[in-house]
Amino acid sequence: MSNNTYNTFTDINTLGEFGLIKALTSDIDHCQPSTLLGVGDDAAVIRHEGEVSVVSTDMLVEGIHFDLMYTPLKHLGYKSIVVNLSDIYAMNAMPTQVTVSIAISSKYSVEAMKELYEGIYTACRMYKVDLVGGDTTSSPKGMIISVTAIGHAREADIVTRKGAKPGDIICVTGDLGASYLGLQILEREKQVYLAHPGVQPELEKSQYLIERQLKPEAQSGAIEYFRKAGIRPTSMIDISDGLASEVMHLCSQSGTGAYIEEGKVPIHPDAERTALEFNLDPITCALHGGEDYELLFTIDERDLEKVRYMPDVFIIGEMTDASDGIQLHTTGGNIHPITAQGWNHFREN
Amino acid sequence: MSNNTYNTFTDINTLGEFGLIKALTSDIDHCQPSTLLGVGDDAAVIRHEGEVSVVSTDMLVEGIHFDLMYTPLKHLGYKSIVVNLSDIYAMNAMPTQVTVSIAISSKYSVEAMKELYEGIYTACRMYKVDLVGGDTTSSPKGMIISVTAIGHAREADIVTRKGAKPGDIICVTGDLGASYLGLQILEREKQVYLAHPGVQPELEKSQYLIERQLKPEAQSGAIEYFRKAGIRPTSMIDISDGLASEVMHLCSQSGTGAYIEEGKVPIHPDAERTALEFNLDPITCALHGGEDYELLFTIDERDLEKVRYMPDVFIIGEMTDASDGIQLHTTGGNIHPITAQGWNHFREN
Repeated sequence: MSNNTYNTFTDINTLGEFGLIKALTSDIDHCQPSTLLGVGDDAAVIRHEGEVSVVSTDMLVEGIHFDLMYTPLKHLGYKSIVVNLSDIYAMNAMPTQVTVSIAISSKYSVEAMKELYEGIYTACRMYKVDLVGGDTTSSPKGMIISVTAIGHAREADIVTRKGAKPGDIICVTGDLGASYLGLQILEREKQVYLAHPGVQPELEKSQYLIERQLKPEAQSGAIEYFRKAGIRPTSMIDISDGLASEVMHLCSQSGTGAYIEEGKVPIHPDAERTALEFNLDPITCALHGGEDYELLFTIDERDLEKVRYMPDVFIIGEMTDASDGIQLHTTGGNIHPITAQGWNHFREN
Repeated sequence: MSNNTYNTFTDINTLGEFGLIKALTSDIDHCQPSTLLGVGDDAAVIRHEGEVSVVSTDMLVEGIHFDLMYTPLKHLGYKSIVVNLSDIYAMNAMPTQVTVSIAISSKYSVEAMKELYEGIYTACRMYKVDLVGGDTTSSPKGMIISVTAIGHAREADIVTRKGAKPGDIICVTGDLGASYLGLQILEREKQVYLAHPGVQPELEKSQYLIERQLKPEAQSGAIEYFRKAGIRPTSMIDISDGLASEVMHLCSQSGTGAYIEEGKVPIHPDAERTALEFNLDPITCALHGGEDYELLFTIDERDLEKVRYMPDVFIIGEMTDASDGIQLHTTGGNIHPITAQGWNHFREN
């Protein structure tokens, strides 16, 4: 279990804000030709060529979105970028730049911040986006990370949440519920560790679930496949709050209903097993768990053949008339209405 | 003295995240033709026409950047937008869109958040920018506001910090030090209020200084004038950390030295008087106070005539060879080196 202590400890106060920014951004490379100017002036400058820009922003707060007791800072940095890129892909656009603002209390060392930025830079390299700006400031308590991602697309390629129509096929790019179950395991091991600090946590057999929680990936491959195969989804959203919540967003914005076939919702065997260990229904974890960062999209039924050849795609249901509501067709042959029970950070506190 | 209590108190937990976003963004109007899609999808979509985008981001933290004991939420919302637009103007670009992310503890009511957003929307209307996205989440303690501003310009119009050369004239768009002195007054009255809660603060005669602190404006007029008069500054920066710190940024990035004439630095009579009341040297407040959000820029000496007709512009010095260093020519005929003593939030804590 990582507790984020480091051999070297350089008090953040010894550098000051400009020193810290310099220490964290001195070796930025740019890979996007559209990045004319990055960190180091009042603003970054981005070039365009008749395309549209796509902008998304997210804030991660210590104690709400992450727990540093079991989140390595490098993973946290990586994840903070990925969750924003996921929103850009969900518009059928390619991310090109990010800005990162961080507020930290003085308990963090310069080395800890470098660790966080190593994760940020790794994600930037992996997804070929440029870090072009940000703000580093202090907070009276804890860490807050705010990321804004910018992407590009041809205007005609943009996919919103509101284009689906009855009869469209509902697809998802990967298995669901694993991230939520990874979090349950980390929380359980944290409690064990707090009660018995000498006991080593058992995490090996849950590696897949924990990685889905701590180091999620965004679905760049799906967007590349859409381009190659000439598919334009009719609506799309990324799964951050859980399948149920996202299906409801697509339906309410498109003015449709939907049904999801329980038996078609992809759930990893490790997630299935762990859900039962926690006395949870696996499909409930898939519907309401969240933080999967898979893409949920709909396609016109004429594109069905093209989608069948897409790697890692699962067809899980169909859009219907709004009057039919949003339903789960269970494997037992029953029909249940799907309601929202996703994350609600305000209610948790 | 505002203590941000309201007649109506709707617990933030009754709305949930989506409810809160809806309550805060239901009446957004767009005024920029480049805004194709705003709040309500995974990302906003912005159109371009062969121009460049300019992006800047800032984070404001309760207890570090603002004190809600004397900052009305409406002013805070307004200021959080303005300080970001100021960075866009400092690139000689026009801001067009903003995103706003806010983390708040559950002690804030929905009415308080609406108050904050009223200030945000007022600033957006005033500066003709569109709010196109954001994130609203909870924090374990206090309020954090993160704003990203996006602007546009022709590539040839962009002005960075690094284009100045020896002989260029140094100009500033307005008086300096007032915002810092406004903050000193608010802090003093806060202490009086805490010690004697019955005593009404005396703020009337300090209205100008307090407004500079609580409701600063960004210098859109200067950028419009540059366009009309055909001036392209050789370097530019906005004054957020104090004149001294910003001159040093221009010099270090342009590879020049500079001298500033003390007698030419504009200081408002109220600032002058109040500085003496606090036993402070007015020029020290102007050099190191910060949060003025005026533009500091340099022009080629051939543009001097054009700048003379600019409203509210002050010529305060000249760029020199790097070997001459950065100097203050005092009214008494002495020469002092200028060093950085600006805000350092990390040192304060």
